[in-house]
Amino acid sequence: MLLDATTLHHYARGAAILGAGGGGSTGVGLLAALQAVEELGPVEVVPVTEVPDDGLIMPVAGLGSPDVTLEKIGNPRMGVWLREMIERETGLRAHAMMPGEIGGGNALMPVVWAAHAGLPLVDADGMGRAFPEMQMISMHLAGIPATPTVLIDERGQGMVFRDMDAHWLERAARAVAVAFGGFVTTADHVVTGAQARTSTVLGSVSRAVRIGEIVSGSRSDRVSSILEHLDGHALVTGKISDVDRRTTDGFVRGSVLIDGVREDKGRLVRVEIQNENLVVLEEGRMLASVPDIITVLDTQTSDVVFTELLRYGQRVTLVALPAPDIWCTPRGLEVVGPRAFGYDFDYEPVGSILAGLPGAPARSAPAEAGR
Amino acid sequence: MLLDATTLHHYARGAAILGAGGGGSTGVGLLAALQAVEELGPVEVVPVTEVPDDGLIMPVAGLGSPDVTLEKIGNPRMGVWLREMIERETGLRAHAMMPGEIGGGNALMPVVWAAHAGLPLVDADGMGRAFPEMQMISMHLAGIPATPTVLIDERGQGMVFRDMDAHWLERAARAVAVAFGGFVTTADHVVTGAQARTSTVLGSVSRAVRIGEIVSGSRSDRVSSILEHLDGHALVTGKISDVDRRTTDGFVRGSVLIDGVREDKGRLVRVEIQNENLVVLEEGRMLASVPDIITVLDTQTSDVVFTELLRYGQRVTLVALPAPDIWCTPRGLEVVGPRAFGYDFDYEPVGSILAGLPGAPARSAPAEAGR
Repeated sequence: MLLDATTLHHYARGAAILGAGGGGSTGVGLLAALQAVEELGPVEVVPVTEVPDDGLIMPVAGLGSPDVTLEKIGNPRMGVWLREMIERETGLRAHAMMPGEIGGGNALMPVVWAAHAGLPLVDADGMGRAFPEMQMISMHLAGIPATPTVLIDERGQGMVFRDMDAHWLERAARAVAVAFGGFVTTADHVVTGAQARTSTVLGSVSRAVRIGEIVSGSRSDRVSSILEHLDGHALVTGKISDVDRRTTDGFVRGSVLIDGVREDKGRLVRVEIQNENLVVLEEGRMLASVPDIITVLDTQTSDVVFTELLRYGQRVTLVALPAPDIWCTPRGLEVVGPRAFGYDFDYEPVGSILAGLPGAPARSAPAEAGR
Repeated sequence: MLLDATTLHHYARGAAILGAGGGGSTGVGLLAALQAVEELGPVEVVPVTEVPDDGLIMPVAGLGSPDVTLEKIGNPRMGVWLREMIERETGLRAHAMMPGEIGGGNALMPVVWAAHAGLPLVDADGMGRAFPEMQMISMHLAGIPATPTVLIDERGQGMVFRDMDAHWLERAARAVAVAFGGFVTTADHVVTGAQARTSTVLGSVSRAVRIGEIVSGSRSDRVSSILEHLDGHALVTGKISDVDRRTTDGFVRGSVLIDGVREDKGRLVRVEIQNENLVVLEEGRMLASVPDIITVLDTQTSDVVFTELLRYGQRVTLVALPAPDIWCTPRGLEVVGPRAFGYDFDYEPVGSILAGLPGAPARSAPAEAGR
């Protein structure tokens, strides 16, 4: 598969939906990716099965607070620098790049970096969605070391991290991201082709493109199309009545209140945020939580409203899509379940929650939710 | 010269005096250095003139908040790790280590690291005293690049910084120090023997040893001995009546109030601190400032009271010693003068200030202050 001007538009739409509101908005990322493929030609996407056993794959991503990326634009040469640094550090030649996460702008910037570094992308990612912290990656679950990790900023200031586990890496790299203005770029949890086959979420790039195609080509309304094709659930339709958002410790943190409208009139739903949408609460009950993919859609356009762009008065439809399978194991939930974010409750799939709740929340759930 | 059990005691005393209250207390550092030379033999101190032109010198130092070092004890293997990392990064063999600063514990830990790394120390440092920030080093004045810099913690977690100037390095490394518990160890501004001859403060190690010998052997009281031999000035003798100290942003910051006693009764002097003692203020007038070496001495024992150990009720004598020459140029003062620390006044040597002030402050100044 090739990522060119056409497929990139679909890819951006799909990645936005999978991003759970995070990964950075796709606006700047799509423009940068379109420019890169116009200048340098389409970027090839290769299946993980086609990477040689010893072929080095660089998972690449922006790290920091997504709101910063709206103003602090990257440097396309970062792809070249990341490649040089990883090759120097490992003594190996890079075979391909891979989006660290398939959500939002973090799905698109790897296209830019790969184009400039002269590398293909592999059709996989490390999350199957977006998550805010570095240890929240499938390679960590699989026991792949977090380091060596390389980090670069748009000025070309580079750092190498060695002999750290993923949690210490998160602390150190996050601190540098904050010190460097809120956003940096990394290649971490590097894998060989053999390792990637059992430690990554396979097929993510083509899945995002396909989602984008389906949604774009939908003849019915797009929200229904997203729910139908991704087995998702609408949680509430309403108006944003409050946004509490701050940029702190290298994250966007906060919460948003959605006042129900029409058939949801009278409901008040709260979404809590750390870069991504983490949990949905209503009257003290959990309606949905990580690792399910909680996404705010603009009710009119069906476009994803990224967490850094939520604002008072927006008409939105809140949806939840099932978590990628990899995160639904006990070990997966230890790393990315609600307790990993400090909540004192366990994960329950959104479908089960809605099926078990005969009251208001399920009113806006689609028929296939089990009722 | 050899640093052994005898010379180390003198070295510690001298380095404490030159530290301006900072560099970390010499208590733990001296114990660690004594243990290292007992296990591994004395550490050789070689003049910079004896280092080959292309011999690589590693300036090494702890970075962070000195109060943390009272509890977060280092790992002697850090010396080995620092050497390995610098050699891997530069592709050169290390010839010697050098204390990044000749103040407090940061003068002693390089003895430990050099002993374990099997390297001598060069008889020089980068400050001629202690300063809190990474760009406040003579090599920076001389135009030596700040990077490559390597950083290690006591667990062996390592980082390499590339292509950063000294100010960006300070931001990044300080952030990591905080993330790693408040203290890490670095080798930065590495120099060759040829570079060291024109970019370091020469003779610092032997100077600290000599100061310690003189003070230890003094038959008169030690405070007078320090003032006499270092051309210093007593600023006030009193009792600490308030300490405002916090550990923040990887520094000890705060201030201390000294209430005059005996001939200084009625005076109230304030010392402001960022790891080191920065400025002395009395009734809104500056009595002394960086880069002069402002040191609080215990009035009874004449021992240095490090900034992290200042406490209410201590009987102290506040002294100021002339700044190392290198810092008294316009460019030097740009980097370490009062304005570099956010003060809105210019540096004036303590001797000139006292000579021009016929009032209270000069009362406790020694005769040679010009009166």
